[in-house]
Amino acid sequence: MNIETLSLQYDGQSVGLLDQTQLPHVEKWLQCRSPEDMFEAIKNLQVRGAPLIGVAAGLALAVYSKSEPSVEEFVKTAKWLRTSRPTAVNLMYVIDLILHQVEKTGDVAGVEDLALQVFEEDQQLCESIANNGAVLINDGDSILTHCNTGGLATAGVGTALGVIRKAHEQGKNIHVYVDETRPLLQGGRLTTYELEKLSIPYTLICDSMAASLFQSGKIDLAIVGADRIAKNGDFANKIGTLNVSLLCHHYEKPFYTAAPYTTIDKQCESGAGIEIEQRKPEEVRGVTGSFGQCLWAPENAQVYNPAFDVTPAKYVTGWITEEKVFLKPNF
Amino acid sequence: MNIETLSLQYDGQSVGLLDQTQLPHVEKWLQCRSPEDMFEAIKNLQVRGAPLIGVAAGLALAVYSKSEPSVEEFVKTAKWLRTSRPTAVNLMYVIDLILHQVEKTGDVAGVEDLALQVFEEDQQLCESIANNGAVLINDGDSILTHCNTGGLATAGVGTALGVIRKAHEQGKNIHVYVDETRPLLQGGRLTTYELEKLSIPYTLICDSMAASLFQSGKIDLAIVGADRIAKNGDFANKIGTLNVSLLCHHYEKPFYTAAPYTTIDKQCESGAGIEIEQRKPEEVRGVTGSFGQCLWAPENAQVYNPAFDVTPAKYVTGWITEEKVFLKPNF
Repeated sequence: MNIETLSLQYDGQSVGLLDQTQLPHVEKWLQCRSPEDMFEAIKNLQVRGAPLIGVAAGLALAVYSKSEPSVEEFVKTAKWLRTSRPTAVNLMYVIDLILHQVEKTGDVAGVEDLALQVFEEDQQLCESIANNGAVLINDGDSILTHCNTGGLATAGVGTALGVIRKAHEQGKNIHVYVDETRPLLQGGRLTTYELEKLSIPYTLICDSMAASLFQSGKIDLAIVGADRIAKNGDFANKIGTLNVSLLCHHYEKPFYTAAPYTTIDKQCESGAGIEIEQRKPEEVRGVTGSFGQCLWAPENAQVYNPAFDVTPAKYVTGWITEEKVFLKPNF
Repeated sequence: MNIETLSLQYDGQSVGLLDQTQLPHVEKWLQCRSPEDMFEAIKNLQVRGAPLIGVAAGLALAVYSKSEPSVEEFVKTAKWLRTSRPTAVNLMYVIDLILHQVEKTGDVAGVEDLALQVFEEDQQLCESIANNGAVLINDGDSILTHCNTGGLATAGVGTALGVIRKAHEQGKNIHVYVDETRPLLQGGRLTTYELEKLSIPYTLICDSMAASLFQSGKIDLAIVGADRIAKNGDFANKIGTLNVSLLCHHYEKPFYTAAPYTTIDKQCESGAGIEIEQRKPEEVRGVTGSFGQCLWAPENAQVYNPAFDVTPAKYVTGWITEEKVFLKPNF
């Protein structure tokens, strides 16, 4: 089976990734032919979005399985690939699924089928999430979103952005306010790119501007994705999400997170148990990408740069999943 | 009288401005020899900070007065210079003061003395604000600040940053969290520059990261400046300030604004009466400065780019002025 989505290609020999560090100006495909290639691509955020990382890592192991490594070699490599990003639980979920099968059968032959199954499931999950969430959006709504959660973050239409896309396709007249999402600008670079492709009206803002839009009554609700959801409903998502949730809480607007069941970590009791990845200080001292490179802060400026923050369940109006929308307090 | 501060020079013939678009990497002085030069420098944010703009504009009119324009020409030029930025009230305050004297005396001869008086007063105001505010900072406090409010924003030690500097000089062991302050990065470029010069420990953050610091109890209070304060205590300040005030409100931490009486607009009943300047979309689509230029969003991305937002008085713990700290509800 060959795959071709907005951001992912697969032909059995290689995993193609639309290099997300190059968007929106350059559409460059990166071919990953080994677990090492995929590790680098994940680490460098060339592929990103919790669901897409999981699918892509699975497909990279499918390619690897065709080189007929021993079960021992395969397990070692898969466990190593599992460490390429510490917070996104989908990566661990997919690799554990594959490892479980390989260890149970003592054979790597079934890895490709399983990885393709994971891909197809992700597309279906996105579709169900989009359908379940779209009913929460009314005609005329303005929606705030943070980071990127569309076809560049999943193998399908997306999570939070999939919900927005579905509402648009249903003919609802909506407007999207896009947080640029410093430091890595996934909103400014990627969500804008997707919304342009989909012809959905949007306005790009700096993260600190949302408060003033809420104050003047211009935002009706916010929808974001999730990188890991704890058993109690607390969830980790891109740094800045907590701030969005607090604005909704303060201005009494609904705040939703949209994610598939694979994002729920049943081993994790609450947000306190979620490890937060600290990233390089250069990301805050300036910007780097295909669009250029700038350093605007003093070269040795001390920096705080967590990749994620944790939003407590108490600020969440509802969790949009493929099964249904869990409204508080029924998570 | 000659002037030489961190950011301002004056020798009677020219107003020297440390070009703030070039900091922190390049220290370049710009010489303004005419009201036109000053208009451009204000418009381009080469000089910024409400108090400093007022002082600099006054000195530019002092230079201009020496060319012996007619009263009519002088009044016309001064009124034009007064329009170079719409929100900062100090600019209007200083120019109105000069216009009042010129129109009353029918002579431009006294303009330089008055402009120098404004300069000296600003230094004294800063000193008094710093002394009054420093008592609010305890040994061991971590302080969040937004934008730049130091020697690059005033003719003296600054307002909010002057308070922080004074607490440090008093021997208090403090740490400053600096919001980078998108889109123009006054925090990342200028406040970091000043704190390095003063050897005050700081950590630079993206604006959206402050929430996570509050959540983990790492911020004890916030102090910001003000561009215009209404009679009821509402105030306009750099975009993002409202968000800081809401975080303090939510996490029950003190939130102070520090400003001289010249920032209070007695004609303005409440924040609803404050005009908010909308700036160029390019500022949100990327960054530009001496540090380089990047465009990371789609070229024609629709953008919302207000220079300021309005913080309602109800979220302000206290207004630090040269006279005293007005604690709510006694503003």
